Amino acid sequence: MRVLSTSSSDGIHEQLFTLGRLPGVLWTPAGATGTRPLIVIGHGGGQHKKHPAVLYRAHRFVTDLGVAVVSVDVPSHGDRPPHPELHRIATENQARIEAGEDVAPLLAAFQRMAAGYTVPEWRSVLDAVQELEHVGAGPVGYWGVSLGCGLGVPFVAAEPRVRAAVLGLGGGAASAELAAAITVPVEFVIAWDDERVPRADSLALYEAFGSTEKALHAYPGRHGDRMPEFELDSAVRFFARHLTPVPVA
Amino acid sequence: MRVLSTSSSDGIHEQLFTLGRLPGVLWTPAGATGTRPLIVIGHGGGQHKKHPAVLYRAHRFVTDLGVAVVSVDVPSHGDRPPHPELHRIATENQARIEAGEDVAPLLAAFQRMAAGYTVPEWRSVLDAVQELEHVGAGPVGYWGVSLGCGLGVPFVAAEPRVRAAVLGLGGGAASAELAAAITVPVEFVIAWDDERVPRADSLALYEAFGSTEKALHAYPGRHGDRMPEFELDSAVRFFARHLTPVPVA
Repeated sequence: MRVLSTSSSDGIHEQLFTLGRLPGVLWTPAGATGTRPLIVIGHGGGQHKKHPAVLYRAHRFVTDLGVAVVSVDVPSHGDRPPHPELHRIATENQARIEAGEDVAPLLAAFQRMAAGYTVPEWRSVLDAVQELEHVGAGPVGYWGVSLGCGLGVPFVAAEPRVRAAVLGLGGGAASAELAAAITVPVEFVIAWDDERVPRADSLALYEAFGSTEKALHAYPGRHGDRMPEFELDSAVRFFARHLTPVPVA
Repeated sequence: MRVLSTSSSDGIHEQLFTLGRLPGVLWTPAGATGTRPLIVIGHGGGQHKKHPAVLYRAHRFVTDLGVAVVSVDVPSHGDRPPHPELHRIATENQARIEAGEDVAPLLAAFQRMAAGYTVPEWRSVLDAVQELEHVGAGPVGYWGVSLGCGLGVPFVAAEPRVRAAVLGLGGGAASAELAAAITVPVEFVIAWDDERVPRADSLALYEAFGSTEKALHAYPGRHGDRMPEFELDSAVRFFARHLTPVPVA
């Protein structure tokens, strides 16, 4: 893991890094030392590790919870070059969608394939980041919606260090078996009028999670509409319940 | 409004009262003076105004929000005598359910009829309670699930003083038009495996609310299973957002 740049503002310490060829960013509370929980944020399709939607949530998690947050570019996104195979399939899919094919199964197949790359990448990021003195081997959480959900389900299913996950805007067509393997608490958020993920697919994914504690949250809106602010508040409290020790009060 | 008894413990002031023949209970913060928000709790079927499920939530709302909470017995419940017509229909329904009829439409028809009594009763309770110096004419919230949802939908639809409602464990078969008339923020909570209210009916009720802000929350479980504690936490915050002024921080 090679740190490319370091900066601090508003109480948040930001480190841009590469792990091999994988570009990532780590946020921690300024001046933090010692072990703390770590939240992995998986960005959406067409976004990147420092997209405003990622940055905004990362800052909230660091500020409100005192945790570390890490995010890396998905193949073909951000600072990564186009991935030949994924790029080819994405281009083909675009043509098939324009020709009238169903979006959902194409998207699901694409995400399953992309997860073949991102799951091992993200696991190696955990290995590296948790060796840092100001992160350490604390409990891990995952936050990701849309592409971040499609890639998040196989990651959370595969990675025992993840203790709690906020997922959403994703469907179950391709991942029911993986979802069933997830047993940690899940908060699953959907846009009720999602035009990209059929509502029945989303409800099926919620149904498929193997978790005892799983909450479904819906809000009116389409796939790209801004998620209500109280859903981020809810995610903060969800991670507070599951990643950080209960205050002795 | 006639106060029958007054007691205080754990910082909560409790007044049992009757309004005409209607028995009710009012909780306020001990020593409170002046206007504050008021939350009406509608109890569930077979419960009463001081059922533990009501009491527990009332105490949380008073303690965490500093609001007043009022609850009254539904006809044929608590300290009220059996209501001849509702009692007859409930008895008939029991026989029809045992003979294999669908529960949901019978329940919906029963609740619609009961609401013909409870909506005017609850409105008169608002009139009376809001004249008290330590309650006053502040914003009103409503909390009710199961029977409390069946009776709550027509109440919230009819009563402009209600600014926010937590509803749940109810279906939409009988009340889609009333639900469409509700435009205040709604938090709607369902048990995913509800054996009394078909899931599709619950989702239809959520869909029917006319509110711009409406959240659907689901948790795994059956109709009578204990609701997760974090749903009560969520209701507290929901009412804090919509009934009480935003703290200047």
